[in-house]
Amino acid sequence: MQTLSVKTVRRTQLVDVTAQVQKVVASSGVSNGICYLYVPHTTAAITINECADPDVARDIEGALDRLVPAAGPYRHSEGNSDSHVKSVLVGASQVIHVEGGKLALGRWQGVFFCEFDGPRERLLQVKVVAC
Amino acid sequence: MQTLSVKTVRRTQLVDVTAQVQKVVASSGVSNGICYLYVPHTTAAITINECADPDVARDIEGALDRLVPAAGPYRHSEGNSDSHVKSVLVGASQVIHVEGGKLALGRWQGVFFCEFDGPRERLLQVKVVAC
Amino acid sequence: MQTLSVKTVRRTQLVDVTAQVQKVVASSGVSNGICYLYVPHTTAAITINECADPDVARDIEGALDRLVPAAGPYRHSEGNSDSHVKSVLVGASQVIHVEGGKLALGRWQGVFFCEFDGPRERLLQVKVVAC
Repeated sequence: MQTLSVKTVRRTQLVDVTAQVQKVVASSGVSNGICYLYVPHTTAAITINECADPDVARDIEGALDRLVPAAGPYRHSEGNSDSHVKSVLVGASQVIHVEGGKLALGRWQGVFFCEFDGPRERLLQVKVVAC
Repeated sequence: MQTLSVKTVRRTQLVDVTAQVQKVVASSGVSNGICYLYVPHTTAAITINECADPDVARDIEGALDRLVPAAGPYRHSEGNSDSHVKSVLVGASQVIHVEGGKLALGRWQGVFFCEFDGPRERLLQVKVVAC
Repeated sequence: MQTLSVKTVRRTQLVDVTAQVQKVVASSGVSNGICYLYVPHTTAAITINECADPDVARDIEGALDRLVPAAGPYRHSEGNSDSHVKSVLVGASQVIHVEGGKLALGRWQGVFFCEFDGPRERLLQVKVVAC
């Protein structure tokens, strides 16, 4: 298992980490298998979506912020309950097929680390297994 | 890895692909293991839910459409930003246990390809691994 | 594959099952690998989020109930369409890395069984594979 670092600069931010993950896949030497992605944070998540037009990631950020209002009502007193909810909706884990030594992503797909309580220094766990 | 084709006929549509996926599991010869499902599209997703009453899938379609309005405000100019957001909320990947040569689904569960920007011809990646 | 029992006491309830899952990991004897979690129900789900402050789980429950109203409009006549929708949003499967014989969770993370149509007796499928 390798752990990547991700630096975020906004409270809600989708960061394209495709190249970093692809590098882990390449260095694993695995030709065909599975890539396991996991976010060890409770106010962040991992998703796969369009990386061609950066407006899509911005639209996703805006839509999630409108969907889960920061205002509550919430009990947790740290002011980031909405961040926890977004993390649950998007999810902490993803699996992607590896074919020919690369992530078998669709034509428009990229891997996005999702920050919901930034800016912060974050981690992303990656494991590539032949199968 | 096998790639299945899925034809969708509506903009938002849950398509029951359980039989197609079960066929891949059977043809793999794997008795106990894991089935990995992955959607290589940015306006579609994969989920598991009730397949007994088709009204449930229709209710899920309606609820997602109400949850993420098509109207925005969005930046992406293709008129399908809501589709991208739904795709992120439902997710591109799922894993299901395989037991006795079959998907270890619950009694009421089926596997659904989720179309959020149809009608289209879509793909679903499936891999079955013994473990 | 092992199947854990989870008893829920409210209609919408996040139940911390970290210790139960950790026990399966320990008894598997796997040092490094993957833990596969799967919920064989259509009105429940599995997620990973903060287990330090129980208010976070309560806030997530409340936010999901506000996000997906019980009132509909829905077609399915069992009065739990909102439960099915929440199940789709949170998801039936998760994968977590195993390192040193333990779930490689983040500092604040716990594993939560998500009940959306309780109270009920529920099941959670767990498999731990070395890799």
